[in-house]
Amino acid sequence: MSDPQHLIPHTALYAFITRSFVACGFPEEDADTAAGLMVKADLMGQDGHGVFRLPMYIKRLRAGGLNPTPEFRCLEDRIATALIDGDNGLGHLVMHHATQLAIEKAKTTGVAWVGARHSNHAGPASLYAMMPLEHDMIGLYVAVGSANHLPPWGGTEMLLSTNPIAVAVPSAENPPIVLDMATTVAAYGKVKTAAQRGETMPEGWMIDRQGKPLTDPTRASEGFLLPIGGPKGYGLSLIFGILAGVLNGAAFGRDVVDFNADSETTTNTGHFILALDIKAFADPDVFRADIDRVWAEVKSSPRLPGFDDIRLPGERLDRVTQERTANGIPLTGALRAQLDEMAASLDIDPLL
Amino acid sequence: MSDPQHLIPHTALYAFITRSFVACGFPEEDADTAAGLMVKADLMGQDGHGVFRLPMYIKRLRAGGLNPTPEFRCLEDRIATALIDGDNGLGHLVMHHATQLAIEKAKTTGVAWVGARHSNHAGPASLYAMMPLEHDMIGLYVAVGSANHLPPWGGTEMLLSTNPIAVAVPSAENPPIVLDMATTVAAYGKVKTAAQRGETMPEGWMIDRQGKPLTDPTRASEGFLLPIGGPKGYGLSLIFGILAGVLNGAAFGRDVVDFNADSETTTNTGHFILALDIKAFADPDVFRADIDRVWAEVKSSPRLPGFDDIRLPGERLDRVTQERTANGIPLTGALRAQLDEMAASLDIDPLL
Repeated sequence: MSDPQHLIPHTALYAFITRSFVACGFPEEDADTAAGLMVKADLMGQDGHGVFRLPMYIKRLRAGGLNPTPEFRCLEDRIATALIDGDNGLGHLVMHHATQLAIEKAKTTGVAWVGARHSNHAGPASLYAMMPLEHDMIGLYVAVGSANHLPPWGGTEMLLSTNPIAVAVPSAENPPIVLDMATTVAAYGKVKTAAQRGETMPEGWMIDRQGKPLTDPTRASEGFLLPIGGPKGYGLSLIFGILAGVLNGAAFGRDVVDFNADSETTTNTGHFILALDIKAFADPDVFRADIDRVWAEVKSSPRLPGFDDIRLPGERLDRVTQERTANGIPLTGALRAQLDEMAASLDIDPLL
Repeated sequence: MSDPQHLIPHTALYAFITRSFVACGFPEEDADTAAGLMVKADLMGQDGHGVFRLPMYIKRLRAGGLNPTPEFRCLEDRIATALIDGDNGLGHLVMHHATQLAIEKAKTTGVAWVGARHSNHAGPASLYAMMPLEHDMIGLYVAVGSANHLPPWGGTEMLLSTNPIAVAVPSAENPPIVLDMATTVAAYGKVKTAAQRGETMPEGWMIDRQGKPLTDPTRASEGFLLPIGGPKGYGLSLIFGILAGVLNGAAFGRDVVDFNADSETTTNTGHFILALDIKAFADPDVFRADIDRVWAEVKSSPRLPGFDDIRLPGERLDRVTQERTANGIPLTGALRAQLDEMAASLDIDPLL
């Protein structure tokens, strides 16, 4: 069932995304920043969060649901915290700004927490958690997801999103450890992919409104995603939604706009980034060597039958990034066709 | 199989724990602080983390594995961060000190992160996450667990602990939302309880060294706890262990001492507390009213068959605290006998 794949050089993809945004009225610098982050998502293997989302962003820009020329405002400012109003700009731009601010503050204070409201979908969580790494800092990012896919534990009203968390920690000889996870067993993108491929879902991904396992992904709208660890994942999704949404004055619960179904209504998406300066706790070189020891310990554990390797979070991301930087980014024929159509409608040069 | 339960007034339990610690050489003030926190754990219904642990703490104090007169040192100090050396004191005292410091710092900075090394078991995570609440702050606490019970995903060497997280958020009319969870499906205490009661565990709590479900709790030593969401819970446990352990220069991985099996070796337990000032983001009254709306939305969701209520994290904790404050704390006959024996050996008055 797989589409023929085309390998696209990341530089070509970057140029295409840039001109798409410029055609929609983005200032050149913002188009560059957003394109750089989106291509990075594709390079990292986050196929559901890179250029795959571009047609939806463009649709939203043209429908007036996304501001191409946002002016960020700092609504609250303390030594180690800030609250940013994203003026309904693309989430990548809002969180790029917020993360830079958190890094600057943490250089002095040791830790900084910057929240944002009136933002939008920002791609994969790991993008922002990884930005502090080059400053000898640890990053922690949380977002309210852009559509509600799960009810509170025991309920049937979809009040919660997959609210992801990402944490990135540097090492010396190994890739950084990068945890990037939804608080549900499966992300909703995996359900969509299973439907496209005509596959059955394993039990445990979703249940229907009677609480019975739902394994047919074409019936996804009749049920809900399941949180990891049952009530625990529900609790994580709730708390992350409060910290990234409610605290920032951003949407949560019934106020969350399903950005797949609605391109016009302001989403008021909330996120936060925490930057933690390693130097406030340890010599960064010593710490990175300690993380290498963690790698070595984990890798050397004897294995369960059926496992040929033990992976650390971020290991695949690093390998895929290297492969795709060298060889290009695979795009399905269906996505290529969609991007060609979008290019024609924007009257810009197509991807290649 | 249930033991006859005795209801003990919390004031009596507090006095007993205080004199136990004083008999072991604690300064009066430290004995008071530790007893207050331990009784609070019992009041909250955290039966496995309150006075239940006292005999083990006393055993460790008498074996020289715990310092009754620690002098805390601030090893690193930045405007919004600190690293505390707990001098092998009781974890409650170390984290009480660290949390007070985080609260003081966050009053100025908006957020503060205080880590600790050379600490010990500190009782339930929620104790510390809740301390910032009375200062209009949100608390977030993470610890390295005091014994390794799970391997990395796909492995068989128990390199990781249940590494819990707790987050507490205030409301106006409702109890605070308090998430307090291990990163495993079941805490190890639940396995021990099932064994005591002669019960079978559900599939999904543990697996054996072949990766097969382990449901007989008396065979717990032949297998491992399972992380929530499989590789996701493994990732959370790993990252929390790095933030609370490695970053602080505390034990992690092969260095973790099983404090159930060994009362003499210094555990070098690590934890951290984050205090976040709500006033740096919102008017606390508005925020608390927003959290009441979250309560109302969640409670009003239609329910799945078989559920007669939808609970928020912290709801049971609040109800149990009220009941036990009024009526007393239930202790099993077995625990009473253990405490009586301990009192005799310390030459102090028994519990009642």
